[in-house]
Amino acid sequence: MTRIPGVYLSRSIDLEAIFGETFARLAPDLDLRAPDRIEDPGAVRFAVCWEPADDAFLPYPALGMVASIAAGIDGIVAASSLPDVPVTRVRDPEQAKIMAGHVVWNVLWWHRRFRERLAHQAARRWERLSHHAPSTVTVGILGFGLMGRASAEALLALGFRVIGWARTTSGAIDGVRLETGAEGLERVVGEADFLVNLLPLTAQTRGLLSADLFARMPQGAVLIQVGRGAHLDEAALLAALETGPIGGASLDVFAVEPLPSDHPFWTHPKVLVTSHDAAEAGFETIVGSIAEDARRLVAGLPLLGAVPRDRGY
Amino acid sequence: MTRIPGVYLSRSIDLEAIFGETFARLAPDLDLRAPDRIEDPGAVRFAVCWEPADDAFLPYPALGMVASIAAGIDGIVAASSLPDVPVTRVRDPEQAKIMAGHVVWNVLWWHRRFRERLAHQAARRWERLSHHAPSTVTVGILGFGLMGRASAEALLALGFRVIGWARTTSGAIDGVRLETGAEGLERVVGEADFLVNLLPLTAQTRGLLSADLFARMPQGAVLIQVGRGAHLDEAALLAALETGPIGGASLDVFAVEPLPSDHPFWTHPKVLVTSHDAAEAGFETIVGSIAEDARRLVAGLPLLGAVPRDRGY
Repeated sequence: MTRIPGVYLSRSIDLEAIFGETFARLAPDLDLRAPDRIEDPGAVRFAVCWEPADDAFLPYPALGMVASIAAGIDGIVAASSLPDVPVTRVRDPEQAKIMAGHVVWNVLWWHRRFRERLAHQAARRWERLSHHAPSTVTVGILGFGLMGRASAEALLALGFRVIGWARTTSGAIDGVRLETGAEGLERVVGEADFLVNLLPLTAQTRGLLSADLFARMPQGAVLIQVGRGAHLDEAALLAALETGPIGGASLDVFAVEPLPSDHPFWTHPKVLVTSHDAAEAGFETIVGSIAEDARRLVAGLPLLGAVPRDRGY
Repeated sequence: MTRIPGVYLSRSIDLEAIFGETFARLAPDLDLRAPDRIEDPGAVRFAVCWEPADDAFLPYPALGMVASIAAGIDGIVAASSLPDVPVTRVRDPEQAKIMAGHVVWNVLWWHRRFRERLAHQAARRWERLSHHAPSTVTVGILGFGLMGRASAEALLALGFRVIGWARTTSGAIDGVRLETGAEGLERVVGEADFLVNLLPLTAQTRGLLSADLFARMPQGAVLIQVGRGAHLDEAALLAALETGPIGGASLDVFAVEPLPSDHPFWTHPKVLVTSHDAAEAGFETIVGSIAEDARRLVAGLPLLGAVPRDRGY
C-alpha cells in the first residue's frame, strides 16, 4: 500500500503529540509526520494545521489540501505562504453541542448568580437567591452557524428569549429572530442582556467587539466571548466593565494565548476566564474527516470539508 | 365588593411578607391575612400554605381549599389537621424551564470540570481541560413530570444521552427511554453517570436515594438532588462519596432546612450546596393561579390546580 504523505504544521502546539496516535489507529493509509521527519518535501500532498508559521507552506510544492484541525481557518489563511489549494475545516455536530454547553453554563453562571452561591456555601450561609424569569431575559447570538444554532436551541429549551445576527438568514430556526446587516447588528446588540460571540474571524468581523458596540448594550449586559481573540478590543472591554454598561464577561479566547499571567482579566472580579477549551471536536471526528478528504484528494474527488475561500470561513 | 377571606399558614416562612404585595396588586378581591389578624376564623374559605404546623387548620371550619405555593404538596398533606378539601398546587411551565436550567448547570459543572477551571483562573493557570463527549454520558432522570421533561429536553439539546424513570410512561418524549417499576429503576440507576432526582415525595419515594441505590450506580456517578430532602439518606450519601461509587453531588434540598451550619455537606469537597432555590415559580404565576382557584371555589367551579389526593402529588 502506498501511504499518502502529509505534514503537521503549527508554530504553537505539537500536533503529532496530540493527534499522532489517533491517525495511526484510524488512518494507517496516511503517512503524516512533523516537518523534521519529512524525507521528501516534494511528495507531501496535504498539511494538517493549527496556527502555521507564516512561511510554513514553502517547502511543500505538491500540497493539494490544507486541513484545519478545528472549525476556524483564520489562523491558516493568515499565513502568506498558503498556496492556492482547498482549505478544509472540521464540521462536527457534537462539537456544536459541546459549545452550546459552554454557552449555556456561562449564561446561567451570571443569570442564576452562581458565583454568589459558591461564596454562600463557603461561608455556610443559607440564602435563597432570586433572578429574573428567563422569558424576560434576551440572549443575542452573533454568528448563526452550527454552533450558534445549537446554542440557540439549548437556550430556547431553558426558556430564554433568543435573537441572532448573521451574514444571511439561511440558518434561521423557529423561535429566533435572526437579523442581518449593520442595522440588524445594532438592534441585536441593543436588546441583548447576554451577548454570545460565535462569529468566524474575517476582515469584516475583526475588532467587532468594540467600545462602540459595548456602548449600545443594555446596562448590566454580559459578554460571552467564544469566537476569536481578535474579535475583541480587550482595553475597551475593561473600560466597559469599569464604567458600564457591561456587568460581566466570560472569556475563552484572547488576543494573546496562553493569556499572559499579568493580564488584568485573570483577577478581574467580573471576568470568568477559561483556557480556549469551550469546545474541541472529538479526536475521532477530526482525524476521520481529515483522512477522508486526504483520500478524496488523491482520488480526484471534491473535498467535503472545503471552505469557500472568498467567504473566508 | 365582598372579599374572599383567606389565611396564610406556615411554620417556617413569612408568607405575607413574601406574597402580600403581589396578592394586593393582582387579587384585591381576596382578603388574605396572617392568623393573628383573622377576626372571624369561621369565615375563612381558603388557606395559602408552605409547611403548615400540624394543627394549623383546626381554627378554620369553613375551609374549602388549601393551596400550596409550590409544585409539591407533601408538606401540607403531612399535617394531621388537614381537612378533607381540595389541595391545589402551582403548575408553571416556566418554573419547569428554570428547574431545567439548574439541572443543566449542575450537570455541566461536574462534566466540564468547572470547579477546576475556577481554581485555574484563581492561580492564573492556563490549562485546557478535556471531558468525555456528551453522547457517551448518560443522565438518568427520576420523575418525569413537567420538570423532568423540561430537563430532558435541555439535556438532549446539549447532546447528552437521557433516560428516565416514572410511575407510568404517560410523560414519554422522543429521544428518552422511559422506564417504570422496580426493575426499570435498577436499569436507570445502573446506567446513570448523572442521576437527577425530580420525584414527588410520597410514601413510595421517601428514602429512595439510599445506600442500596448508590451501590448500583456507575463508578464516579454524580447525584443532582432537587426533589425533597426526605428522598435522601444523607449518611448513606456521605459514605458513598467517601468509599464510592458516588463522585460528586449537587444538593438543593435537605432533611433539615436551613441546612445546619455544622452539617458536613457545607464543607465537603465533592458537594455543591444551594439553598433550596433551584426553581421557584414566578410570584405572578403563584398568586394568579391561587386567586383564580379561590374565585372558582366561591363560584362552585372545579379547582384548576387540584391534586388527586390518592396519588399524593
